[in-house]
Amino acid sequence: MSVNTELPPSFIPTLPGHSYTDATIFEQEQTKIFEEYWFAAVRSSDFDGPGSFRTVDVGRENVLIVRGRDKKLRAFLNVCRHRGARVCMEKSGTGQRKLQCGYHAWTYALDGSLVAAPNLTQMEDVDRTQYGLIPVHLREWLGYVWVCLADEPPSFEDTVTGAVAGRLGDDDIIEGWKIDQLEVGRRITYDVKANWKLIIENFMECYHCATIHPELTEVLPEFADGYAAQYFVGHGAEFGENVSGFTIDGTAGVDAIPSIAPEHDRKYYAITVNPQVFINLVPDHVIFHRMYPVAADRTIVDCDWLYLPEVVASGKDLSRSIELFHRVNEQDFDAAERCQLAANSRAYANGGVLVPSEHHIGLFHEWVSQHLDAGVGHA
Amino acid sequence: MSVNTELPPSFIPTLPGHSYTDATIFEQEQTKIFEEYWFAAVRSSDFDGPGSFRTVDVGRENVLIVRGRDKKLRAFLNVCRHRGARVCMEKSGTGQRKLQCGYHAWTYALDGSLVAAPNLTQMEDVDRTQYGLIPVHLREWLGYVWVCLADEPPSFEDTVTGAVAGRLGDDDIIEGWKIDQLEVGRRITYDVKANWKLIIENFMECYHCATIHPELTEVLPEFADGYAAQYFVGHGAEFGENVSGFTIDGTAGVDAIPSIAPEHDRKYYAITVNPQVFINLVPDHVIFHRMYPVAADRTIVDCDWLYLPEVVASGKDLSRSIELFHRVNEQDFDAAERCQLAANSRAYANGGVLVPSEHHIGLFHEWVSQHLDAGVGHA
Amino acid sequence: MSVNTELPPSFIPTLPGHSYTDATIFEQEQTKIFEEYWFAAVRSSDFDGPGSFRTVDVGRENVLIVRGRDKKLRAFLNVCRHRGARVCMEKSGTGQRKLQCGYHAWTYALDGSLVAAPNLTQMEDVDRTQYGLIPVHLREWLGYVWVCLADEPPSFEDTVTGAVAGRLGDDDIIEGWKIDQLEVGRRITYDVKANWKLIIENFMECYHCATIHPELTEVLPEFADGYAAQYFVGHGAEFGENVSGFTIDGTAGVDAIPSIAPEHDRKYYAITVNPQVFINLVPDHVIFHRMYPVAADRTIVDCDWLYLPEVVASGKDLSRSIELFHRVNEQDFDAAERCQLAANSRAYANGGVLVPSEHHIGLFHEWVSQHLDAGVGHA
Repeated sequence: MSVNTELPPSFIPTLPGHSYTDATIFEQEQTKIFEEYWFAAVRSSDFDGPGSFRTVDVGRENVLIVRGRDKKLRAFLNVCRHRGARVCMEKSGTGQRKLQCGYHAWTYALDGSLVAAPNLTQMEDVDRTQYGLIPVHLREWLGYVWVCLADEPPSFEDTVTGAVAGRLGDDDIIEGWKIDQLEVGRRITYDVKANWKLIIENFMECYHCATIHPELTEVLPEFADGYAAQYFVGHGAEFGENVSGFTIDGTAGVDAIPSIAPEHDRKYYAITVNPQVFINLVPDHVIFHRMYPVAADRTIVDCDWLYLPEVVASGKDLSRSIELFHRVNEQDFDAAERCQLAANSRAYANGGVLVPSEHHIGLFHEWVSQHLDAGVGHA
Repeated sequence: MSVNTELPPSFIPTLPGHSYTDATIFEQEQTKIFEEYWFAAVRSSDFDGPGSFRTVDVGRENVLIVRGRDKKLRAFLNVCRHRGARVCMEKSGTGQRKLQCGYHAWTYALDGSLVAAPNLTQMEDVDRTQYGLIPVHLREWLGYVWVCLADEPPSFEDTVTGAVAGRLGDDDIIEGWKIDQLEVGRRITYDVKANWKLIIENFMECYHCATIHPELTEVLPEFADGYAAQYFVGHGAEFGENVSGFTIDGTAGVDAIPSIAPEHDRKYYAITVNPQVFINLVPDHVIFHRMYPVAADRTIVDCDWLYLPEVVASGKDLSRSIELFHRVNEQDFDAAERCQLAANSRAYANGGVLVPSEHHIGLFHEWVSQHLDAGVGHA
Repeated sequence: MSVNTELPPSFIPTLPGHSYTDATIFEQEQTKIFEEYWFAAVRSSDFDGPGSFRTVDVGRENVLIVRGRDKKLRAFLNVCRHRGARVCMEKSGTGQRKLQCGYHAWTYALDGSLVAAPNLTQMEDVDRTQYGLIPVHLREWLGYVWVCLADEPPSFEDTVTGAVAGRLGDDDIIEGWKIDQLEVGRRITYDVKANWKLIIENFMECYHCATIHPELTEVLPEFADGYAAQYFVGHGAEFGENVSGFTIDGTAGVDAIPSIAPEHDRKYYAITVNPQVFINLVPDHVIFHRMYPVAADRTIVDCDWLYLPEVVASGKDLSRSIELFHRVNEQDFDAAERCQLAANSRAYANGGVLVPSEHHIGLFHEWVSQHLDAGVGHA
């Protein structure tokens, strides 16, 4: 029952099965990947004015993101410096003037500084500047709040904007979509019983498209050949001849985003930003996925469908547009769950194989492996 | 609070308590016992014609059993050789012409061989005979499909047919029941919150019969003395004088199986086949239990009541017949759950004691211990 | 992101965050603390006459407490000496003449001695005095049954009665309440998703009172300053000027317990008995909490409100009296759950800080640490 010992050149190996199930490996991924890279946590437009906040799980931490009186967004570990209570218990809120811990009323300004606590004035030896909320690095791009828990974050330009440019083969193309000015037409949250890596692997390849995505393949006929947009640099998959828009039935979509170049007019682009973002670009909307890994075998995925503000305001029917990728998501996540079920089998102890149209997944596997301790590789 | 340090000859020790609760020991039992021995997985008659299949958990693996075009049953690990997706997601199905993975459409014949995959013809270096479904050993006996995950299975004759003959004291007795020709009159599945070994131990002895099985003891009065049929070789427990059949109230059963010898006419036999089968023989039916260990503290048990085909076809009332052993099962599984609850107590750290009518359980304990790493024995 | 490296004198450190979440530390606490100290298990009045029993989880054991024919209460490990079944499956019962195991009918007298078992008379070599139920140490005080699983229990006088006297600054004060003669007016069970130590820490300090206990602070105005009754030895917190009783709205309570000294007439006392009892004394009732730690992040708390028997018998409305501390309990347990949520954060890896009015919690932390293996202290 020996498997995969010597592979023909058409095949390259995947990660071994236990890398999708082992709790220790998952904890390393949290520590070395999700808590070290930039993480798209929240849509900026989810915040209202000063004092509005969101709390979100990033790696193993709960992060509090709040808009200050100066309108700037800031992020903090959501933990009181006194006795460690969670400061904000809600997922979101507005109009906070202060951030007050609900246990002993230690009180922080919206910039995180400690401004008051019961009896604090009698503790003259305490330097309150040392007891503010612990800050977390924050950047905004594409209308999302990206945070990084690392002491010294990696370059945002290398790991985020550069990753997007690298996939599109051009620094500026994505600017055409003005994603930060689009509005959320719909958000759907998926609870996927599969390891986050299975979801990325799935997103990167189109060898499965003909099998599980009949509607998508109808709209993008070249996907029937199994080569994903992500296989190539700068490649947009062309709409089918009779297809008018990126919708469930190929009928026309909504108003195209006017700022994109004409050559992207009937094309679909797909970008992965490691470790947890997928972006799809089509002429009239953008689909933006954020993954939140919860356990080795469970991942929450938030998917936003973004349109021109005037389109959202008009109340136009977006359902055919949303239905296409919602169906793709359900098909993909079902597939990831099928793989999760078998990852612990002896048949997958050494992993499986990648066919030529999947070979680029090997780069992702290398990227993951570089972050993990020795011994996680092939058995 | 010392316990069991020196035992009088009437007592021999049981396994220590942690052997019923420790996850590491349970994993060893999966690896060294359930994945190494012949395992009764499915009733053969649960399959229809070519292309009908069943999937079943054996040890830690999910096994796909399918009837081929040649009508032969074959078993495979239910894992696609490409990216490891589970091939058949359903518990059962019929009429499959191929086994196609639902992710990338790798397609296997009913004999497991890889017959097609998208773009495969362009991968000329791939020897597709190397990428069939991984086979699992399979035998049929008594109308059941027995599979073995071991590379080299133990002798079926030694470990299965020989075990039955050894208990009955004769190679041929069991043939009288022609079990493979009987039909399932009823199947009940029990979800027992107890370790599998507690269920075997319970089945092996009758010291508990007078306490928890009033109906069974009424039908088989000798059980009141506490000596199980399994205590002896070749012993059948005699029906009580006024008992007409093996039913909840001792009234007559259904048509006796004509091929059994007259001396078994009013007798009850019980056989354990390690590690997961119990068989009861009475004149008019057979009760066949299969255990599926799920965790150290949980075991699924499938129990089949088997009758002559003409009896099942006739629609005769089988309820009094089924009710007797169904009640025995419930009584036994309750007892096993009582033991599970206390197995972690310091009072059972060194285990308990076996009285003379239970001493033969010690042989089972030895058999288990032989398969486990050192250190699992008495503390 | 360095935290708490050097603290100003106003601050002393708490335990590190992992001590509230680590399963290994919790198991050590079960072994070295809850299974070694006296544990208030049951209210004595919960038992009726001879043959009434209760089963209760103490540490990792299930303990059977039963009233004998001589009316004495005795405690045993609830495990049959034969095959380890749990002897009494119910939480409580009455009128038992014997304790009979439901599996093989091994039968114990109410004093735990083995009196009968099937076929036992034929096992002449068995000394049945060696096979009684394993006894657990038991004491009664304040109307509660305290048990201790240790082979050699610590002095009850040092660890229980002495602890109470130490807090009250006097051996005899508590006798004034004649707690053993009071009756349970109400019992509420709380299921708290927090570590037991967070609940003790909360109970010991009042720095949080102004923030989360508006009703309590109204009744006991000095609590607004943040100094708990437990901060001082022998200190009772004085009722507010316009407060007539210890009730949700400060209106009069019920009949005062006549035997307490006049100086306690308008006061509130609070006592912690490590590791799992809190006692509150007010003029007309006693609030008695018992904690049952279940997991690192879960604790069951039983709270009894105790009144004069004639008050309970009269059917007087106790709801305003009960509502005050029930609301305090809910407020406190919410706070403990907030802390549990953040205990795993890197922000709390080295713990937080105790302000001066909380410094006495440091003594509790030292007491806990003394019982645990090295390495549990500050990182």
